[in-house]
Amino acid sequence: MAKFLVLHGPNLNLLGQREPEIYGATTLSDINNRLQQLAQADGHQLDSLQSNAEHELIAAIQSARQQYDFILINPAAFTHTSVAIRDALAAVAIPFIEIHLSNVHRREAFRQQSYFSDLAVGVICGLGAQGYELALQAAITHTNHQG
Amino acid sequence: MAKFLVLHGPNLNLLGQREPEIYGATTLSDINNRLQQLAQADGHQLDSLQSNAEHELIAAIQSARQQYDFILINPAAFTHTSVAIRDALAAVAIPFIEIHLSNVHRREAFRQQSYFSDLAVGVICGLGAQGYELALQAAITHTNHQG
Amino acid sequence: MAKFLVLHGPNLNLLGQREPEIYGATTLSDINNRLQQLAQADGHQLDSLQSNAEHELIAAIQSARQQYDFILINPAAFTHTSVAIRDALAAVAIPFIEIHLSNVHRREAFRQQSYFSDLAVGVICGLGAQGYELALQAAITHTNHQG
Amino acid sequence: MAKFLVLHGPNLNLLGQREPEIYGATTLSDINNRLQQLAQADGHQLDSLQSNAEHELIAAIQSARQQYDFILINPAAFTHTSVAIRDALAAVAIPFIEIHLSNVHRREAFRQQSYFSDLAVGVICGLGAQGYELALQAAITHTNHQG
Amino acid sequence: MAKFLVLHGPNLNLLGQREPEIYGATTLSDINNRLQQLAQADGHQLDSLQSNAEHELIAAIQSARQQYDFILINPAAFTHTSVAIRDALAAVAIPFIEIHLSNVHRREAFRQQSYFSDLAVGVICGLGAQGYELALQAAITHTNHQG
Amino acid sequence: MAKFLVLHGPNLNLLGQREPEIYGATTLSDINNRLQQLAQADGHQLDSLQSNAEHELIAAIQSARQQYDFILINPAAFTHTSVAIRDALAAVAIPFIEIHLSNVHRREAFRQQSYFSDLAVGVICGLGAQGYELALQAAITHTNHQG
Amino acid sequence: MAKFLVLHGPNLNLLGQREPEIYGATTLSDINNRLQQLAQADGHQLDSLQSNAEHELIAAIQSARQQYDFILINPAAFTHTSVAIRDALAAVAIPFIEIHLSNVHRREAFRQQSYFSDLAVGVICGLGAQGYELALQAAITHTNHQG
Amino acid sequence: MAKFLVLHGPNLNLLGQREPEIYGATTLSDINNRLQQLAQADGHQLDSLQSNAEHELIAAIQSARQQYDFILINPAAFTHTSVAIRDALAAVAIPFIEIHLSNVHRREAFRQQSYFSDLAVGVICGLGAQGYELALQAAITHTNHQG
Amino acid sequence: MAKFLVLHGPNLNLLGQREPEIYGATTLSDINNRLQQLAQADGHQLDSLQSNAEHELIAAIQSARQQYDFILINPAAFTHTSVAIRDALAAVAIPFIEIHLSNVHRREAFRQQSYFSDLAVGVICGLGAQGYELALQAAITHTNHQG
Amino acid sequence: MAKFLVLHGPNLNLLGQREPEIYGATTLSDINNRLQQLAQADGHQLDSLQSNAEHELIAAIQSARQQYDFILINPAAFTHTSVAIRDALAAVAIPFIEIHLSNVHRREAFRQQSYFSDLAVGVICGLGAQGYELALQAAITHTNHQG
Amino acid sequence: MAKFLVLHGPNLNLLGQREPEIYGATTLSDINNRLQQLAQADGHQLDSLQSNAEHELIAAIQSARQQYDFILINPAAFTHTSVAIRDALAAVAIPFIEIHLSNVHRREAFRQQSYFSDLAVGVICGLGAQGYELALQAAITHTNHQG
Amino acid sequence: MAKFLVLHGPNLNLLGQREPEIYGATTLSDINNRLQQLAQADGHQLDSLQSNAEHELIAAIQSARQQYDFILINPAAFTHTSVAIRDALAAVAIPFIEIHLSNVHRREAFRQQSYFSDLAVGVICGLGAQGYELALQAAITHTNHQG
Repeated sequence: MAKFLVLHGPNLNLLGQREPEIYGATTLSDINNRLQQLAQADGHQLDSLQSNAEHELIAAIQSARQQYDFILINPAAFTHTSVAIRDALAAVAIPFIEIHLSNVHRREAFRQQSYFSDLAVGVICGLGAQGYELALQAAITHTNHQG
Repeated sequence: MAKFLVLHGPNLNLLGQREPEIYGATTLSDINNRLQQLAQADGHQLDSLQSNAEHELIAAIQSARQQYDFILINPAAFTHTSVAIRDALAAVAIPFIEIHLSNVHRREAFRQQSYFSDLAVGVICGLGAQGYELALQAAITHTNHQG
Repeated sequence: MAKFLVLHGPNLNLLGQREPEIYGATTLSDINNRLQQLAQADGHQLDSLQSNAEHELIAAIQSARQQYDFILINPAAFTHTSVAIRDALAAVAIPFIEIHLSNVHRREAFRQQSYFSDLAVGVICGLGAQGYELALQAAITHTNHQG
Repeated sequence: MAKFLVLHGPNLNLLGQREPEIYGATTLSDINNRLQQLAQADGHQLDSLQSNAEHELIAAIQSARQQYDFILINPAAFTHTSVAIRDALAAVAIPFIEIHLSNVHRREAFRQQSYFSDLAVGVICGLGAQGYELALQAAITHTNHQG
Repeated sequence: MAKFLVLHGPNLNLLGQREPEIYGATTLSDINNRLQQLAQADGHQLDSLQSNAEHELIAAIQSARQQYDFILINPAAFTHTSVAIRDALAAVAIPFIEIHLSNVHRREAFRQQSYFSDLAVGVICGLGAQGYELALQAAITHTNHQG
Repeated sequence: MAKFLVLHGPNLNLLGQREPEIYGATTLSDINNRLQQLAQADGHQLDSLQSNAEHELIAAIQSARQQYDFILINPAAFTHTSVAIRDALAAVAIPFIEIHLSNVHRREAFRQQSYFSDLAVGVICGLGAQGYELALQAAITHTNHQG
Repeated sequence: MAKFLVLHGPNLNLLGQREPEIYGATTLSDINNRLQQLAQADGHQLDSLQSNAEHELIAAIQSARQQYDFILINPAAFTHTSVAIRDALAAVAIPFIEIHLSNVHRREAFRQQSYFSDLAVGVICGLGAQGYELALQAAITHTNHQG
Repeated sequence: MAKFLVLHGPNLNLLGQREPEIYGATTLSDINNRLQQLAQADGHQLDSLQSNAEHELIAAIQSARQQYDFILINPAAFTHTSVAIRDALAAVAIPFIEIHLSNVHRREAFRQQSYFSDLAVGVICGLGAQGYELALQAAITHTNHQG
Repeated sequence: MAKFLVLHGPNLNLLGQREPEIYGATTLSDINNRLQQLAQADGHQLDSLQSNAEHELIAAIQSARQQYDFILINPAAFTHTSVAIRDALAAVAIPFIEIHLSNVHRREAFRQQSYFSDLAVGVICGLGAQGYELALQAAITHTNHQG
Repeated sequence: MAKFLVLHGPNLNLLGQREPEIYGATTLSDINNRLQQLAQADGHQLDSLQSNAEHELIAAIQSARQQYDFILINPAAFTHTSVAIRDALAAVAIPFIEIHLSNVHRREAFRQQSYFSDLAVGVICGLGAQGYELALQAAITHTNHQG
Repeated sequence: MAKFLVLHGPNLNLLGQREPEIYGATTLSDINNRLQQLAQADGHQLDSLQSNAEHELIAAIQSARQQYDFILINPAAFTHTSVAIRDALAAVAIPFIEIHLSNVHRREAFRQQSYFSDLAVGVICGLGAQGYELALQAAITHTNHQG
Repeated sequence: MAKFLVLHGPNLNLLGQREPEIYGATTLSDINNRLQQLAQADGHQLDSLQSNAEHELIAAIQSARQQYDFILINPAAFTHTSVAIRDALAAVAIPFIEIHLSNVHRREAFRQQSYFSDLAVGVICGLGAQGYELALQAAITHTNHQG
């Protein structure tokens, strides 16, 4: 059995709450529930946290040491600005996958820059909420190989 | 009647408290009071918030959805570093004006870069505390045109 | 009593004459008249000039020395190309505010570069014709403080 | 029922043939077979092609028009050099996901540049052969949503 | 019948007057006459203007609104320096072709930068005086398609 | 009598075959036939070749030595990536004009870079299929002057 | 007697707790205690604070005004991202030394950039925990010279 | 006997008229008179022109062909912006020396760029009004060597 | 006995066939024969291949695995554009020397960039056809040291 | 007992000899004497050398191999220009600390570039003559840990 | 009476000794003699030194303090590489003029960069040996004004 | 008979003296002797010099004029910093080959920049001590062709 931690960065709490006819009705709750079901179905544990505060994400990562086997993280806006979260991930040395709902390569130039990608096991972007599920599959595979 | 939210970024709480003979005696309170008077005189509501914490400003912006018609924001140091506040403003889609007390074009090179200006209705800089009042006038005009 | 000079750069003579249903019916005349009224109401004098010729703007600035207390300038396209107008402003040492009708930060990259902003008292952009009025208010405040 | 085309760029024919104790024994055949099984299990058709020749990949993409619903492509070295394959993908307007076996963000600077990512639906990298399977899942979801 | 305006930028008045054994004997007059004949032969009207003064070219472009259907412009040195002429062309929204006698891609690095090309219908360079005639043909085709 | 070779780069074989209501019904065949008629009407010979393969274009250029007097080339995507075709053109030293159907200056930044323009006699872009005809006229003029 | 404030940025709370056989057993507590002893031995007062939250560090700096004579700060990851802490330090105008445990010049390119160094009295990096003690010595010297 | 033309760019008409206690009382007239005396003393003719208008300087340069042997030019602000004056100088092929009163290397970064220096015989900067006299000496030497 | 593979990139088939009075009469055949003689004289085997097609060179390199001990490669134009050939060389892990007939450092800026040099054992440029012979000597030495 | 070598780069011989009321009266002799006392007090040996000649510093470093345990170096102007001294330090592989009297981060942009920092154990800047003493302490600690 | 020091950088000792039919027969001796005559004629003293060694030029500059009133320096190749000579000039604070025989703006890009120009009183380039004489005149004027 | 001069830059005197089990036992003496034998065997003369001092290498090059036919130079660290040696080589106009023992393309970014390569006949790098021998062969061929 493996333990997974899912971290969502700033503004992702708004997901699905705004203009559902455009952005879809999937909320962050929906995503977290779906991931938990998938994890449990495979006999794993999965917890999740969203925060708009950099320091709360750092705290979560620091506490994850020796508690979790793998992290799924969508750093959202912190992708491009937080060396501190990067350092926390490097310090606890838990393998992680970086996920973006949208295809960042189609967006502003400053979104092409990530403080996470070169530390990550891999990166998934542009595949919407399904991107999390795919990342979880890869994480399960990864922890199986390490175990 | 329109509702305005005024947001002040980090270190602006120090305004007027330090070396008044140099920087003037105008405090942030003075500015907020003056803005409130101006808004009320015109039959509008105006609230204000200062924070040194990025996540508090994000929370304020997220809560502003469907509560406020226009935001006046002086992101101060976050102008150059916070994609998360930018994303919050973009997510709630409330029109805003970016204000800087000093003329940022006369300062360090890194202050020429703003994560806000291309999303803003407009930008005012270098006009001191009066810059807020001018921005409020423009905001009132803007909300009248939309209403 | 203070004396203000308003300078409009190239192509601003077209304002309001083209597709009024899109760009609005406000002409440069309207703006100048409005500014003059505001100035006179406050007991000040205000003159204005539009030119598509760099040298005419330079001449106006040179002549302004000891004639005007403050300049409001929308350099339009010359913002990005005229070191000569910049030098004229620096030579006469009259304080000035730089104004842009549109939000230049939303436009082509070459419009992010200004030869004026670091010399200006302040900059206002994106607030349309009202931007001039706000600048005049700031100018009046500025001249009061100096006087 | 949807039809999928899997395209593999240069040198991917070597996969699994070299130093299996290091790179693993998974060959390109294995990957293609696995993808075909997954597609068929879901009632879809899937074809695949590997080529070291840019023009053969262009030909395959041009022929795919009105033949395939979605393309999975690992452009390998052509990621960074082939505007011609990019143009072919844009011309046939078939949605596609870009896949990389390794995490390109950990490699040479020139591998950070992709001619494909801004046209792709999404990008998956660093998840090895499983990356193809995850991409197929996303592609199936995508075609279901469009159908 | 269409009306064409041909604009020649600074120093093009020297054409053919200097060292004809080297630069050829074709003067700007020759070019203008030839273009007028071609236009008239096809039942169109064509006028031309050369100026070394940016503001005269701006004036000509502003006056062209609703007077001309298409502009042929060789901005010469202003290609690389005049945002004001660019803005005039954008303001009157008359389609235009940018022409250069010499192949600017063989010359100094600063000549690779044009303020006009991204607004133009198309660009012709390096084909000498014939470049104007080819541009006129394309302009006639263009106006036929619009008419 | 002169001999002309027309070379079309990758994906130009799709011309006119896709969405004719948008891109027009003109096929590459149409263009080639039209060019041949124009050449023959003037007593010249003209051959053409399209290829998605860089090496086929190189072969065509190498074979053109002492067979053709002038080359018209639309390198399409190879404009930005093929030093090898550039070198072939330089090696055979046949004068050539570079043609682009669309205005590359309005497109992605990477399309502003050409490996051909500084070697070409001249460049025509943005004038659609007519661009080829204009180039042929210039080529005929050029060969007359050399002959 | 002088008063010193020691500030430690994000993730420094992990110091000495992780893999002591590699990173050494020195904890942040050890460092703080050692510094306090050194300060007291010399008749000075020294307080210290670690935080993963930017706003807590800002608050500490703002409160330090007229309370402390000198600041020793290891901004850790905030070195490269926090203009807000920089501004706080500039606002309170307390002299400070910037300290880094590791030699940042041997690490990622983004760690070469500091928002603090040009404001600092001096910088010490690469000398491990001893770097703090050396900085304290320099701070004592500095306050003696000012006093 | 040689003929010299001295050209002064924008804002140089202000020389010596403003704050003589700071900038010195030397006017442009003084400089021109002094140069004329020096030229005449050596049996040469010297004329001078100041203009704030780019096109007037171009006209003066075009007219100088076959009228003057050498040009002394202080392009002032046009140094950094006028390709048109550069082209005029190149077209008439009259040798020239570029002069700047102040040391441009001590000023804003954009003043390090000159459109004139690579065409000039030589450049003199930072030597004040005497720079013109030194340039005239060099010009006399130069024309003697050519004559 | 060692086995050497000599690879020549695009347009090198033209060597010696064009303007022998300028470029010399040495053909690629001459070079290959000479190299074969030198190899055989030393008891080694040497094969060679020229191709204008990137994929043929990739195929040759892939096939070389376990067939050849060392590769001599003049990638010609592919030096600057082919990541795919680079990747093939890296995949087969055969040591190689990069050779250029001309001194690339004297040529266009884009020729200063090589996708091969950082993988090569060494680089020889500017020494003409002799460069190949020197490279073969170094290759023989290299294989002796490894053998 | 450890042996330390202190190296001072160009112009540091002027220290304390010029305008002592401004720069202080501390001479290089004073610094060297103080360092020697500190070293001796701790039972170590310390030698020092100042040179304005790059090759003398290289010679000193080369001779230091197997003679000294640690080097303290203030490369002064050579910090930014001498790859040769860098190479000498790398060749002898003696650990060293880089020292600067002033805070180089407050000075010209070219002083931000150091050829030494990434090879150094650590860097101290801005702490004046005391910086040397602090470096010596760190060096003693370092040699104790290695011994 | 003023004292002038003339410094010539590396390779200037070759002046006039090589190919006099091309470079002229003027040797460095000739230049120095001529300068000395001019200085003496005006009642001043002038000494000169040429060196290919950076440290000798530094020594000369250091010794010049309180010995010379003004320095004329042609740093030759050291213009672009010697921060140490720059620092020496800054340290002794003797005013100097920078001289170049050739017009450096017509030469390689790396020669556009000078470590001296922003410290110099002024710069003269491209005027050959006469450049020294002109600089001496300016130096005499300068010392008269200071005296 | 030809005369060759071999020049070795800074730190090459250490070759073979340090850790021979790692870097090999070949000393600079060995290399020089071997080169002399090869030259003499072919009837030529060869001299060599190593220096850590830039000015000694300049002196050697200046003295080489009319004394040597060809120079082999390994500028070592001076490759990236000495315009003065470059100028000396250009001044004496003796053809030379640039040699590097290691493959500079695998090393720090600053080592990719050479002040010599664009002046050299050719460049050899990464082939160790044998690189000198190969360069000598090329030099002999070169002098034969010139003779």
